[in-house]
Amino acid sequence: MKIVIIGGVAGGAKTAAKAKRLRPDAQVDIYTEDTHVSYSACGLPYYVQGNFEDYKNLIIRTPEKFQKDGIGVYLKHRVTKIYTKEKKINVWDIEKDINYTVEYDKLVIATGAKSVMPDIKNCKIKNIFTLRKLEDGINLRNQLRKSQKAVIIGGGYIGLELLEAFVSNNVHTTMIERSNYIMSVLDDEMAALVQDFVENLYPNLTRIMNKVYVTEFIGKDSVTGVKINTGEVLDTDLVLVAAGVEPVVDIAVEAGIKLGKTGAIKVNSRMETNIPDIYACGDCIENIYSTTGIPAWIPLGSNANKEGRCTAMNVCGFPDDFEGVLGSAVTKYFDLTISRTGFTEKFAQKNGFDTVSVMITKRDKAGYMPDAENVTLKLVADKRTHRLLGGQAIGCGDADKRINTLSTALLKHVTAEELSGADITYAPPFSTSIDPLISAARLLAEKLHKN
Amino acid sequence: MKIVIIGGVAGGAKTAAKAKRLRPDAQVDIYTEDTHVSYSACGLPYYVQGNFEDYKNLIIRTPEKFQKDGIGVYLKHRVTKIYTKEKKINVWDIEKDINYTVEYDKLVIATGAKSVMPDIKNCKIKNIFTLRKLEDGINLRNQLRKSQKAVIIGGGYIGLELLEAFVSNNVHTTMIERSNYIMSVLDDEMAALVQDFVENLYPNLTRIMNKVYVTEFIGKDSVTGVKINTGEVLDTDLVLVAAGVEPVVDIAVEAGIKLGKTGAIKVNSRMETNIPDIYACGDCIENIYSTTGIPAWIPLGSNANKEGRCTAMNVCGFPDDFEGVLGSAVTKYFDLTISRTGFTEKFAQKNGFDTVSVMITKRDKAGYMPDAENVTLKLVADKRTHRLLGGQAIGCGDADKRINTLSTALLKHVTAEELSGADITYAPPFSTSIDPLISAARLLAEKLHKN
Repeated sequence: MKIVIIGGVAGGAKTAAKAKRLRPDAQVDIYTEDTHVSYSACGLPYYVQGNFEDYKNLIIRTPEKFQKDGIGVYLKHRVTKIYTKEKKINVWDIEKDINYTVEYDKLVIATGAKSVMPDIKNCKIKNIFTLRKLEDGINLRNQLRKSQKAVIIGGGYIGLELLEAFVSNNVHTTMIERSNYIMSVLDDEMAALVQDFVENLYPNLTRIMNKVYVTEFIGKDSVTGVKINTGEVLDTDLVLVAAGVEPVVDIAVEAGIKLGKTGAIKVNSRMETNIPDIYACGDCIENIYSTTGIPAWIPLGSNANKEGRCTAMNVCGFPDDFEGVLGSAVTKYFDLTISRTGFTEKFAQKNGFDTVSVMITKRDKAGYMPDAENVTLKLVADKRTHRLLGGQAIGCGDADKRINTLSTALLKHVTAEELSGADITYAPPFSTSIDPLISAARLLAEKLHKN
Repeated sequence: MKIVIIGGVAGGAKTAAKAKRLRPDAQVDIYTEDTHVSYSACGLPYYVQGNFEDYKNLIIRTPEKFQKDGIGVYLKHRVTKIYTKEKKINVWDIEKDINYTVEYDKLVIATGAKSVMPDIKNCKIKNIFTLRKLEDGINLRNQLRKSQKAVIIGGGYIGLELLEAFVSNNVHTTMIERSNYIMSVLDDEMAALVQDFVENLYPNLTRIMNKVYVTEFIGKDSVTGVKINTGEVLDTDLVLVAAGVEPVVDIAVEAGIKLGKTGAIKVNSRMETNIPDIYACGDCIENIYSTTGIPAWIPLGSNANKEGRCTAMNVCGFPDDFEGVLGSAVTKYFDLTISRTGFTEKFAQKNGFDTVSVMITKRDKAGYMPDAENVTLKLVADKRTHRLLGGQAIGCGDADKRINTLSTALLKHVTAEELSGADITYAPPFSTSIDPLISAARLLAEKLHKN
């Protein structure tokens, strides 16, 4: 059996490694236009920041290791076309500039996602970065070390993680965000708290501009300024564009592979596309919320790894179902943790749910412990069934724990009442005798009963 | 309506406060032989250690605050008898040495638990402590500051927390534990790791002796030595007896209130005893494991608070059911977190379950993050149904998060397979792309399939 995988980061790399373990006799080959495979893209912001020195730490498995395990790795090889009937692909060896075809028994599309680069004047000049690939990280880190001023376009996860990286390197940074608040993956009242924290932590190094957008990059060879729609020009030594990502689906679409509602490749729970023997996994696919079946495009390394494993199982003839995702995510800005799972209230309402929600702020540990900090929790429930739909937590306290505790409750449609009876570990260095999550669930249950 | 509560720490204090809020017109009175009410007993080890200076930080609600809220608080008043037919109690005012009777409409027994003091020769001499009440903590802290050497009898939660307190105050401490390992609330292979950590962290200040017991305390006025069954005598300036606790049930038993299998007061899900209008909550009651209905005596502040709230609801005529507990608990020894939920494997087997388990050690965060640490997880499942029965986690990494994430999965009888599909938040400072809990669940699912 010949398994061909397009893309070699999280989903593709995982598929390859697992498939070879399951079927040592199979031929497993990875084709990628990238210069590296199997690295932690999620770790790039921390490499840029300087939390560790060697980018090689980010590499999970080198091409040599893959090859030693009997897996072929073809770097700088772009797959340009899929012949679904003939079961072969066209490959362009970029360095040698030659094209050839490769046959497959099973094809796995793991082309990932790419950064959205808005069509702005002069966007091709130097020192305008996106952060997606390992090389992006290396280049950005080099330029950051030489910079005094920076502009970040977009206030989502990547934008915020790089704001920490820039500010902790003493670089004056302006963040430009079209929405009312940065971190618009949260509900507004939570996002407002994040923005407030960010603006107040290093006010001399940080400026956030909301509801504006960039009209022009200024500079001849490399960027020296960013012009925004108000006419203001921001001097800068570098620009980081973190204005979102989109799934890489062009060759899939060209081959007749169907996309879902979100614009990513549609697969079933066995990671099969609509074309026989073609699978897809990772950031290029559409998933579903396991709780409701609603389509979800949530490009995260955690999902990609699990999907890659599931893909390998099915490709190798061991039927396995991927039940979907919850949209669990976490990031931080210095000491502030920002975490979520399930639906935000705005997403739930957009999808027709009648919601009831609560928001509380509590100490994350016994108040007399010197390191007790606040955590603000928002829980959202369905008014009719009282089922929890999702939660968000932010705080310098342990917000992540509460969200993960909630996440497994969501797996089985737990109601607010049921969650308020959860048995969460308590000791003064870890929690309050009634954990903030229990307090929030109880308040929500009371509110649901009044409604 | 007159609500009389015997005991004023977690369960009793919570019942009183909540009942008064629910029924402002009711007369609510707390009787306790203690000198304080409504304090965090769980925080005493951290006060002894010196994490904060003022014991008043541990007091959640002062008697004055209760009285301001219209709740009567009778300190140093021991309830000596319950007349169930007449619905009254006998009270002994200890200071004035007078006895009188008090009538009730609803009686709540929240007498808590007390430290077991083994019947050892000279156990009444000075500087032999238990740690249960606020005054115990104040006295122990005072003596600790004057001590160079100490002996702790018992290696459970309290023993371990005080070992940290003693060692961090530079006091040479010997811990005496009858079992093979300290922390015998865990399965042996996990407890062995804890003991190993403790013995290696401060080897010059710490000695653990297993499978021995104390035969005699030595000293005239105050303790100067501890003799163990091998004949060895340990010089010491203080002794802390943490050899377990038992529910305080004497007046309940005398009144005809039934105990459960565990020796604690039996209540139904509405916190009612077998005698009409008498409720009980907190450390003096027997609960059930919500997952199985197996009787559980798990005296913890987290449970007591929730039970107190439920008691108040029912006493005040708002029916509310307490569904039981999971046995979730956490403690730490310096940087090592020790946490558990549900059944240990030995407990499950003792209760007739056919178990399958796994134990893994993983990094708690992306390996390239400078603060990544290990976490060791043990998961236990039922062989027949594949349902998870419980889990234990220890490590300098974030062990607590994994256990709480598991705890809500237990609420709804999640299987190992289902847990391996959980969506746990991932970012390099918080987790690995496949969280250790997912890895463990997956390994367990594979093992269950082979069995």
